[in-house]
Amino acid sequence: MKVIENGVVAPLGFKANGIEAGIREGKKRIDLALITSSVKATAAAVYTTNLVKAAPIYVTKDNLADGYAQAMICNAGNANTCNADGIEIATKTCELLAKELNISAKDIIVASTGVIGMPMSIKPVENGMAKLVAGLDNKKENADLAVKGIMTTDTVAKTIAVEFEIGGKVCKMGAMTKGAGMIHPQMATMLCFVTTDAKISSKMLNEALKDVVDDTFNMLSVDGDTSTNDTLSIMANGLAGNKEITEKNADYEAFKNALYFVCENLARRMAKDGEGATRLLECVVTGAKTKQDARIVAKSVICSSLLKAAIFGSDANWGRVLCAIGYSKADLDINKVDVDFKSRKGQIAVCRNGAGVPFSEEIAKEILLEDEIEVVVNLNSGEGESKAFGCDLTYDYVKINGDYRS
Amino acid sequence: MKVIENGVVAPLGFKANGIEAGIREGKKRIDLALITSSVKATAAAVYTTNLVKAAPIYVTKDNLADGYAQAMICNAGNANTCNADGIEIATKTCELLAKELNISAKDIIVASTGVIGMPMSIKPVENGMAKLVAGLDNKKENADLAVKGIMTTDTVAKTIAVEFEIGGKVCKMGAMTKGAGMIHPQMATMLCFVTTDAKISSKMLNEALKDVVDDTFNMLSVDGDTSTNDTLSIMANGLAGNKEITEKNADYEAFKNALYFVCENLARRMAKDGEGATRLLECVVTGAKTKQDARIVAKSVICSSLLKAAIFGSDANWGRVLCAIGYSKADLDINKVDVDFKSRKGQIAVCRNGAGVPFSEEIAKEILLEDEIEVVVNLNSGEGESKAFGCDLTYDYVKINGDYRS
Repeated sequence: MKVIENGVVAPLGFKANGIEAGIREGKKRIDLALITSSVKATAAAVYTTNLVKAAPIYVTKDNLADGYAQAMICNAGNANTCNADGIEIATKTCELLAKELNISAKDIIVASTGVIGMPMSIKPVENGMAKLVAGLDNKKENADLAVKGIMTTDTVAKTIAVEFEIGGKVCKMGAMTKGAGMIHPQMATMLCFVTTDAKISSKMLNEALKDVVDDTFNMLSVDGDTSTNDTLSIMANGLAGNKEITEKNADYEAFKNALYFVCENLARRMAKDGEGATRLLECVVTGAKTKQDARIVAKSVICSSLLKAAIFGSDANWGRVLCAIGYSKADLDINKVDVDFKSRKGQIAVCRNGAGVPFSEEIAKEILLEDEIEVVVNLNSGEGESKAFGCDLTYDYVKINGDYRS
Repeated sequence: MKVIENGVVAPLGFKANGIEAGIREGKKRIDLALITSSVKATAAAVYTTNLVKAAPIYVTKDNLADGYAQAMICNAGNANTCNADGIEIATKTCELLAKELNISAKDIIVASTGVIGMPMSIKPVENGMAKLVAGLDNKKENADLAVKGIMTTDTVAKTIAVEFEIGGKVCKMGAMTKGAGMIHPQMATMLCFVTTDAKISSKMLNEALKDVVDDTFNMLSVDGDTSTNDTLSIMANGLAGNKEITEKNADYEAFKNALYFVCENLARRMAKDGEGATRLLECVVTGAKTKQDARIVAKSVICSSLLKAAIFGSDANWGRVLCAIGYSKADLDINKVDVDFKSRKGQIAVCRNGAGVPFSEEIAKEILLEDEIEVVVNLNSGEGESKAFGCDLTYDYVKINGDYRS
């Protein structure tokens, strides 16, 4: 597998664009993004489990019922959630785009992100649609414009593309994602759009997506708040010319590996770009009785507000790691737990068998001053493993969210 | 019921004291607290459900197995948790105190609070014990010294006392509590010590404590982190002379009401004094299908980092309330949910039937600038009710916890 340029337009047949549509009243910022495939693609998506769901999610679910799509459109600046006319607006968005692209409105994935419960007007979308479509191209600049169109409090654009082989055929996969706050995905994450030219049946595409999301985006948390708009979607247009994947064979594994690589890469970068974050906080758990126990522990550790604040202060306060493991509700023997802190500066043991061990505060500080911190937990009770992705809790998280709507 | 002075020494027969024992090396701060009863009292306690438990909890559980106690001792500055010799230190503390008071070491409730996993020495406790006991008295100053002895990042002392009647006899109840961070109690809270001169059997005392804690301390969260040291304990010495409560009759209800009043009062004040907090954030839920659903929703709302930050910024970002209700996993119909914001400045409707309603941002701001904010949620689906206690998320929370150990 090779990382390549051009994000979502790297795979054959995909084009993208992003424009300043004026969704955020009075603000000049790119806020409407589009990705298209030259041919109909098999498509799949997973969504938030929040009972409050954004209107576009209902429309997308309906549109993807047949397993196919040809375009993805997304606005930033308004979540189109808890609005009485939300479904109408999302449906109208698809209709306007379908007319401009000359495709069926049912072949469109639609999404929104921004403030919840703010009335939304279709006007900016309507006025901008011709320009949005006219600017479609498969150059790097176009992928860059598209990802900007889905950003809210994100400070960096998060895209990736890879090249991999299926049965001797070169395939490509690209993706873009957004998300910085209200990030604690359950079965899906804040918006992520994946494109690929691999040929894969709709059924297998769904399975791959569900398998991969559990170990990537579902292991990510910025603030414990599961968004109302989470959507991870993928379109596979088959232009790479590989033999269609219709069962769980070696080709399926190759495809899934690529999807895993792409999703994990973006989940880590979302965590690192968490609202106000200065550090990526990963927790790697081994030795759990089951994979599920490992997942519960890893996620509990990266969700602890106290540990997150300690990591911001580069404080090796490992007692907070033990505390978070202890209340996680995973099945484990606390007297067997080992904990290390790790970064590119090194690794230091701080806890063995559930009790503290002497360590150099100076070396620990040096390790924790890095911007990517790993909490290494061994439960010493089995073969279960997992990894979770989070970030530190900082003044800027409070600042951003104390005054988000304005 | 009447609120009275003198905290834990208000009931007949109780004395208290607090001294600078030097648990926190090099810091002159009161850090060792003691409460005694002149006669043996029935006693009960509930503890953290964290798998990582402080050593004193094991010792206290063992000591309370017979349902009696005569003294409570607690140090601040070191949690005595995850220390290999923790049990030994807690046991030795009881022995030293028992010798000085001439009572059985098995009649002592012992507790600790502070940093987890920091080696602890028995020396300061040993050296201070004679002075601690010599200073025991039943004056207000003594109760004040005792509560200071259990404070860590608390900014205000939290004590209360009430007078109430059982079968025509005047009884009193006093309590002191601490807790500002690592507050998300499960079956108990960060340290709370209750005294009463009411006469009640050990069995009934246990039942009352368990009933009350579920609706008070267990509905409190500062940061979602369930501490390793949570202990709520009560001693009832019977000196008020009421007929002993041995069944769930009117006397039991009178006793439980007093205990509820005391615990709710302290839970609210712990929330308001949450680490870095500038505001109390209460969520009152009505109309739930069951009481349990109401509890889940209320707690989910006050735990949302995003809402907590919005409350810090006095921002009426009600979408975050809906979002937290939506991911709470309670059984509810999101399209029936009503939300208001309320404070002593007034009440404003922001959401009806799960969708936003027009409201004045100016009036909302005025309401939210107060220091006690209530989020009023009606699920309109039944009779279940609950209330939860939390606080806002501020720069100071990050500051306090980015550098706690030093």
